[in-house]
Amino acid sequence: MAFDTIETPAGKAGSVLGGSVNYFSTAASFYTTVQIVAVVGDDFPKTHLEWLSRRGIDVTGVQIAPGKTFHWVGTYDHNLNEAKTLSTALNVFAEFDPKLKEQHRKASYVFLANIDPTLQKSVLNQVENAQLVACDSMNFWITSKLEELKETLARVDILSVNEGEAYLLSGDKNIIRAAKYIRNLGPKVVIIKRGEYGAMLFTELGTFIAPAFPVEKVVDPTGAGDSFAGAFLGYLARAGATRDWIKNDSEKWEQTLRRAVLAGCVMASFTVEDFSLHRLMELSQEELTERSEQLLKMIKLV
Amino acid sequence: MAFDTIETPAGKAGSVLGGSVNYFSTAASFYTTVQIVAVVGDDFPKTHLEWLSRRGIDVTGVQIAPGKTFHWVGTYDHNLNEAKTLSTALNVFAEFDPKLKEQHRKASYVFLANIDPTLQKSVLNQVENAQLVACDSMNFWITSKLEELKETLARVDILSVNEGEAYLLSGDKNIIRAAKYIRNLGPKVVIIKRGEYGAMLFTELGTFIAPAFPVEKVVDPTGAGDSFAGAFLGYLARAGATRDWIKNDSEKWEQTLRRAVLAGCVMASFTVEDFSLHRLMELSQEELTERSEQLLKMIKLV
Repeated sequence: MAFDTIETPAGKAGSVLGGSVNYFSTAASFYTTVQIVAVVGDDFPKTHLEWLSRRGIDVTGVQIAPGKTFHWVGTYDHNLNEAKTLSTALNVFAEFDPKLKEQHRKASYVFLANIDPTLQKSVLNQVENAQLVACDSMNFWITSKLEELKETLARVDILSVNEGEAYLLSGDKNIIRAAKYIRNLGPKVVIIKRGEYGAMLFTELGTFIAPAFPVEKVVDPTGAGDSFAGAFLGYLARAGATRDWIKNDSEKWEQTLRRAVLAGCVMASFTVEDFSLHRLMELSQEELTERSEQLLKMIKLV
Repeated sequence: MAFDTIETPAGKAGSVLGGSVNYFSTAASFYTTVQIVAVVGDDFPKTHLEWLSRRGIDVTGVQIAPGKTFHWVGTYDHNLNEAKTLSTALNVFAEFDPKLKEQHRKASYVFLANIDPTLQKSVLNQVENAQLVACDSMNFWITSKLEELKETLARVDILSVNEGEAYLLSGDKNIIRAAKYIRNLGPKVVIIKRGEYGAMLFTELGTFIAPAFPVEKVVDPTGAGDSFAGAFLGYLARAGATRDWIKNDSEKWEQTLRRAVLAGCVMASFTVEDFSLHRLMELSQEELTERSEQLLKMIKLV
């Protein structure tokens, strides 16, 4: 959970709602029920937690700590595929040590958002019987905590990273070789996000290349990756996909993963149309369905 | 027709065979017969013209002028999607004024490679009854001869340009809006090439997003765009596609264009695996078919 202050070629937004968990959970809530484990400061608007609750998102795992909420300040130039961080104030996030309540321990689908890999591992240690675990990371952890990150990766089913992160993690600037390298670290499923170019999915059965849904109005790419992950994992949860499918019905597994990637691409395309969660907050199921159908038409041959 | 001296992260190649028409015609010759209209200097190897002839490419339109062949010197850094020109020696190309022989005037499919738009228009004036005319251009002409280029574009069916060129031509850094703008200049079909991310096709019926075939070994991207265009137009020629299809059977038109775009993506993926035409020169029909099938598997959902 975060406040973001952002400047893009389309404009500026000061101290708006952001944070991986916000984008992820809102996106996932279009597909399934969601539980959040996070920390905010006492400056965080209760009305927003109430809004999440009304979407069926369980916020009882959101700890309110004395102090200020995490605050990220960033900017994008005309290359909207890459953010530049101007400042990061960890605030209450610096002391965050997630303790899972009983109901969270029993979650079937777990997304470890982009935090210290040691904390990701600590969450994994508290989770019982998860059917699928997905994980995100970033350059900062790849550089500063590579060994801890590798320990976490050895225990997750799915990793989603962007191109630059995949190259940094693998030490290889070729997407095919980078994905092979990362799959050897543990995750059977690797997703490499490519900004406006879409995403690639690498599994036991092959490679899937999904385009981004092309939008005419790109306001702010912040949260696109987390919205992608939320819709992706939400889609898998709604489908009831589990890691047993890999062995028992690998065709169904692959097909469901490919559909889930497209769901992620579609969701991300809405996120970028406005600052913060503004577009997702007003998104209807009908719009989601319509854009999904449009994207299918853009990749079909016959 | 050109000599290229190129440096990429994978190595160097000095004065190797290059030039749009070389890549285009070799690629197209996998699909159909090809006739070249071009100029070379008296330093150009006859053995290469003989090799083209053996591929069924008519080289009687290649004029041999006293002097040196066009020579391009360029480099790529780790961003293999964009070349940096170090020097361009036009040599005999400076005086090139294509005069078409009888057999060339009757060509059904015409590709106007990247030359001065005034010369492109002069070629168009000599062509009788072409079924489809495709055209390429580049930043240099967009900047220096925009009005002439627009006159040419008003008379072609298909334009293929890369992303940067599309943005420059349209004055808009959004791919959807840029394509709309360019289609309004004349070409009913616009293809925007995106390097390792593939290509987008814009037509009356909608948008198609094709991925590049991901290769593990990228040696030199030079000629990828021209190989793409060669396979694309060659595919359309083999299919017998004409601009009348737009009105008479728009579904077949759209489907054939989409298949042709994928053929272009596959061909380009071979070109980048080595310097010059080396990979295309040893490419077999079996390899082409196999990679086409692999690419289809990477975009299919069910």
